[in-house]
Amino acid sequence: MNVILLNQEQIHQHTAIIHDPNTIKHIKTVLGAGVGDDLKVGQIGGLLGTAIIRQIDDVVVLDDVHLTKKSPDKLDLTVVLALPRPKVLRRLVMDMTAMGVSQMVLMNSYRTDKSYWGSPLLARLDEFVLEGLQQGVDTIPPKIILAKRFKPFVEDELPAMIGDGRAMVAHPYAQTRLADYLADGLPKVMIVGAEGGFIPYEIKLLQSVGVQAVSFGDRILRTEAAVNALLGRWLG
Amino acid sequence: MNVILLNQEQIHQHTAIIHDPNTIKHIKTVLGAGVGDDLKVGQIGGLLGTAIIRQIDDVVVLDDVHLTKKSPDKLDLTVVLALPRPKVLRRLVMDMTAMGVSQMVLMNSYRTDKSYWGSPLLARLDEFVLEGLQQGVDTIPPKIILAKRFKPFVEDELPAMIGDGRAMVAHPYAQTRLADYLADGLPKVMIVGAEGGFIPYEIKLLQSVGVQAVSFGDRILRTEAAVNALLGRWLG
Repeated sequence: MNVILLNQEQIHQHTAIIHDPNTIKHIKTVLGAGVGDDLKVGQIGGLLGTAIIRQIDDVVVLDDVHLTKKSPDKLDLTVVLALPRPKVLRRLVMDMTAMGVSQMVLMNSYRTDKSYWGSPLLARLDEFVLEGLQQGVDTIPPKIILAKRFKPFVEDELPAMIGDGRAMVAHPYAQTRLADYLADGLPKVMIVGAEGGFIPYEIKLLQSVGVQAVSFGDRILRTEAAVNALLGRWLG
Repeated sequence: MNVILLNQEQIHQHTAIIHDPNTIKHIKTVLGAGVGDDLKVGQIGGLLGTAIIRQIDDVVVLDDVHLTKKSPDKLDLTVVLALPRPKVLRRLVMDMTAMGVSQMVLMNSYRTDKSYWGSPLLARLDEFVLEGLQQGVDTIPPKIILAKRFKPFVEDELPAMIGDGRAMVAHPYAQTRLADYLADGLPKVMIVGAEGGFIPYEIKLLQSVGVQAVSFGDRILRTEAAVNALLGRWLG
């Protein structure tokens, strides 16, 4: 947590109360903060700023809450992921949020294990987003869309997301190389498959709505590493 | 495992035997391969190629082992990391290996928790490297150096690693922005801190041997995400 995020309901004038045990533990043990210390805070959906710790025991009471700073700009980017293994879902959502991706789509694909859609972690996406915002020092949650059916999503929803921008799908067997593709600018939509990638039918359907298949060489990366490596192109 | 790697001792002429239970389980359950099927294989330190499964039960016997393809080029890059939390060490070493980093240094720093140096995972680096090679379809292990003392490493060993190349350290408070720094080309050495980054003394010592401090914006990333995002710049 590089910033402590508060709900609007937690803030009253210039004071705020924190009840969440994890946050309190973080303030005490990781930050090692005590009464009188400054804290970086932000309001979910609002501004960033600072506060002073007035009381710290079972709850933390903050005083002098001043929120004046806009959160950093989001990237003009939608990341579409074939729903990953639940184990990596948390870190992926967290990292994409921390890096400022404005919209995420978790999509079905032929090689997505159907059981992933039943994972209890899918009900905890808000929690992973909050972790990502607190990591990346941001207050504005990205939009997350679940697309349980591949074809209707690609045909009916994806084109509007691409708009007049470009869209790429990471595909080891593509002719076009990443460096060449990016020489013409960053895409607005980036699509990454599950382990094993997309099947030819899926690549063809994506191409039919204007998505370009792009390879980044012979090396095959874990989904998580690939997504972060690609997002690195957006880092200032 | 996108390739099954074998030791020289496992290969006799054009046959090989696999005893490792994890590899056998992977061949059976993930690849779903049986007698007569092709397998992508490679020799650690040698070439990549294919083999045919001749027998599969408690051991796997391979026949027609033909190794003809060179492993992909390594990146001309040394990554120097403040020793990360053991939990993320495995994934970091694995991903850096899969992406082709040629040399890694795990270094002490002021904010490195001293207990990390006692982690049993440090004795398992070869295992993480093997996982990374099998993920990235490579056969040549990167060199890994442990630098338990910051100052002697930076003063006595780092300059030779930089040579006539460039070196950068990721530092949120640096004036130079990543995009501007990379406009002049990729560095030969990339340095990333522990959680909390480097203290001013450390940044100064790094700068004194020619390392440039570079920021990539207001967003703070997990070490793992930051390293992968930076490595993305090397992806073709």
